Amino acid sequence: MFDSVTVVGRGRVGTAVLERLRERGVDVRDRGGELVLLCVPDAAISEAARQIPLGPWVAHVSGATPLAALDPHVDRFGVHPLQTFTRRRGAEQLDGAWAAITAHTDEASARGFWLAETLGLRPFELPDELRTLYHAGAAIASNYLVTLFRAASSLLEQAGAPPEALIPLMRRVIDNGFELTGPIERGDWATVTAHLEAIHEHAPALEPMYRELADLTAEAAAR
Amino acid sequence: MFDSVTVVGRGRVGTAVLERLRERGVDVRDRGGELVLLCVPDAAISEAARQIPLGPWVAHVSGATPLAALDPHVDRFGVHPLQTFTRRRGAEQLDGAWAAITAHTDEASARGFWLAETLGLRPFELPDELRTLYHAGAAIASNYLVTLFRAASSLLEQAGAPPEALIPLMRRVIDNGFELTGPIERGDWATVTAHLEAIHEHAPALEPMYRELADLTAEAAAR
Repeated sequence: MFDSVTVVGRGRVGTAVLERLRERGVDVRDRGGELVLLCVPDAAISEAARQIPLGPWVAHVSGATPLAALDPHVDRFGVHPLQTFTRRRGAEQLDGAWAAITAHTDEASARGFWLAETLGLRPFELPDELRTLYHAGAAIASNYLVTLFRAASSLLEQAGAPPEALIPLMRRVIDNGFELTGPIERGDWATVTAHLEAIHEHAPALEPMYRELADLTAEAAAR
Repeated sequence: MFDSVTVVGRGRVGTAVLERLRERGVDVRDRGGELVLLCVPDAAISEAARQIPLGPWVAHVSGATPLAALDPHVDRFGVHPLQTFTRRRGAEQLDGAWAAITAHTDEASARGFWLAETLGLRPFELPDELRTLYHAGAAIASNYLVTLFRAASSLLEQAGAPPEALIPLMRRVIDNGFELTGPIERGDWATVTAHLEAIHEHAPALEPMYRELADLTAEAAAR
């Protein structure tokens, strides 16, 4: 649906997207593409959009940014790859990831879906006004997964155990479809209390987080 | 080091352990093994140990339980597979997982290591008095990973997005060595504030958890 694309931004996402478009035979131009795809930081999207002369389609890859940030362009959409990117990898990072498409017209939506599929992503529709809620979920699942691992690792290190031992465990939790096991699933509150005492003694900064997650886990287990 | 083993308990762990010992050619006996391996719930370990006549080695597979629960036996150790088990799978669940070995003597430790390696586990030493701290870390990494996914899923569902879209994202976070990305890593507090407003409106029960994890993530990002 687009024969030529101009990618603005060479960050982690922009670099992978550019490489993938080239792999797919799309004419990637430094300027003048039928689509200008903004792969710039969220806070820079609005200014970058205003600098584009009216004419081409304009899109961004941000998860949290509303389409209004693309003003004054009206031929516009958002395509957010639901993935974490690193500079150490290339376009293959896009494979198998999902993408949230936000658009106000059927044509814009179709173009967003086309772009996502061309990039190797699995698109779904996301209403503009629910992007922030969606993005909060994405941040919980990815960024706070890092924090969970670091917190757990710090306890293992203090116990003299290798933190990398947590990795096969965490992978299996995902493989097993997030089936809950462990003390809360068993209703073993003595163990939960013992955990809290140990955390209070050795890592008090983690205590409120443990309590919040224990409460949410108990509520989910009870349902 | 043990020619025969009696496995007590046919829960998720006991079933996988029994199958693996048979696969390895160990003589698994209903009673009278050189080692009695207690694969019973934590709260039942002490009573089960007291019912075993003195003589054989006695061990448990609990992460949180001290060796004193195996009284009056003195030839004893603990071997905790750091893994989540499901009844839908078999002995292969043990492959590649780590195991915490707790023992008070070199001989007991060597026997614990032998058992772990026979089961296909990667053993490491864990001091008895730090088991609870270690186990709290294991629970954070596994049980609270379930809770994190459920929380994130509920936000995506409310936004009309497919929760399974989170799975490639979460797997990649692990593949990428838990490299932090996202708004907090970028210092983008406007997005964090917007997340909190969306959660406050749509899923207020998750707000304290989000705040705690945001604070811990910010501290880690600043280091």
